[in-house]
Amino acid sequence: MNPPRPTNDLSNAPPRRPGGRSADIRRRVLDAVRTQLVEHGYDALNMDAVADRSGVHRTTVYRRWRDVGGLLADVLAEATDDGWRPPDTGSLDGDLVAVNREVYAALTTEPPITTALIAASFRSEQAADALRIFWADRYQRCAVIVRRAADRGEIPARTDPRRLLVAATAPLYHELILLRTSAGPHIAAQSARAAIASARAGAFVD
Amino acid sequence: MNPPRPTNDLSNAPPRRPGGRSADIRRRVLDAVRTQLVEHGYDALNMDAVADRSGVHRTTVYRRWRDVGGLLADVLAEATDDGWRPPDTGSLDGDLVAVNREVYAALTTEPPITTALIAASFRSEQAADALRIFWADRYQRCAVIVRRAADRGEIPARTDPRRLLVAATAPLYHELILLRTSAGPHIAAQSARAAIASARAGAFVD
Repeated sequence: MNPPRPTNDLSNAPPRRPGGRSADIRRRVLDAVRTQLVEHGYDALNMDAVADRSGVHRTTVYRRWRDVGGLLADVLAEATDDGWRPPDTGSLDGDLVAVNREVYAALTTEPPITTALIAASFRSEQAADALRIFWADRYQRCAVIVRRAADRGEIPARTDPRRLLVAATAPLYHELILLRTSAGPHIAAQSARAAIASARAGAFVD
Repeated sequence: MNPPRPTNDLSNAPPRRPGGRSADIRRRVLDAVRTQLVEHGYDALNMDAVADRSGVHRTTVYRRWRDVGGLLADVLAEATDDGWRPPDTGSLDGDLVAVNREVYAALTTEPPITTALIAASFRSEQAADALRIFWADRYQRCAVIVRRAADRGEIPARTDPRRLLVAATAPLYHELILLRTSAGPHIAAQSARAAIASARAGAFVD
């Protein structure tokens, strides 16, 4: 059984679904990567430990993922391919606050897989590339939130979606990942609303 | 000769000054830590390499800094103690744009010592603690920018300095350190001005 999870984080193994032996192997291996990373950190992440933990034959793991960078990239590729859609609450405030609550949950949930993957991105170029793709994809998918708000006349028509979305979400990453403060959950709504105020004032119109 | 350097970054060895043999040793050792970190990364940072590079006796290095965490913490403590003062240009726009240009320079300068120290903070608890103190100190010192702007009537009187400063700076860290985009220098002014628009709208009044 898979419990419901916030879907903007990086832990989201898809619910078990048909896909046969290959999909089952991938699920077991990527679960093992996440668990190993969270429990023991990047330094303890190696192909043999992942193979042993997953119960998948070492030869298979080496052939399919090649190295630790390949494993991390696939964890992130799986998160990127998860079919996530941004919220559609009918208002910019509702949508952006909901997105930020997902980001907050992803950055504070236990086990801290998102933080562990961000840390790993400073060690592995492949993980850094995959993380960049994951985030680019998430901001791209969220652009519709900004376009809908502009269509409703909530913000200027030529508002740049990415700049607004980065302004809304960046303070959460900054506080929780870099500054390592214990900012409470209210930061999600505060930061979304501050960015909306900027947008209304035309700050993200090029 | 020390070339002028942006002072909001973490590379700032203070200009050589009187202080005798102890200060000279510290300068040589911390220079060696920064160079070693930038050139070879955290994995190659060890006490013996730093001692050899600095020309300071290994016994002295071990006695005074104990371990790699101690070395990193002292690099950050030195940066924290550098007497930096925020700009005072006469307007909130001028001050915040100037701060953000320093942050941008720190995050994009070569060699990338700030990025290397941030990466190290994911490996060393002592470095993480020292980095937290460095940033808390910088935001604290910058609070005067917000108070002066409120006194001039540019923004509401009860604007929270830290929230405004984090909103102004966070997108730079997010783009350059986590998202790893090649955001150009215009992001410094754009992000400062978006945060000021929020502040004017009262978004940082509790």
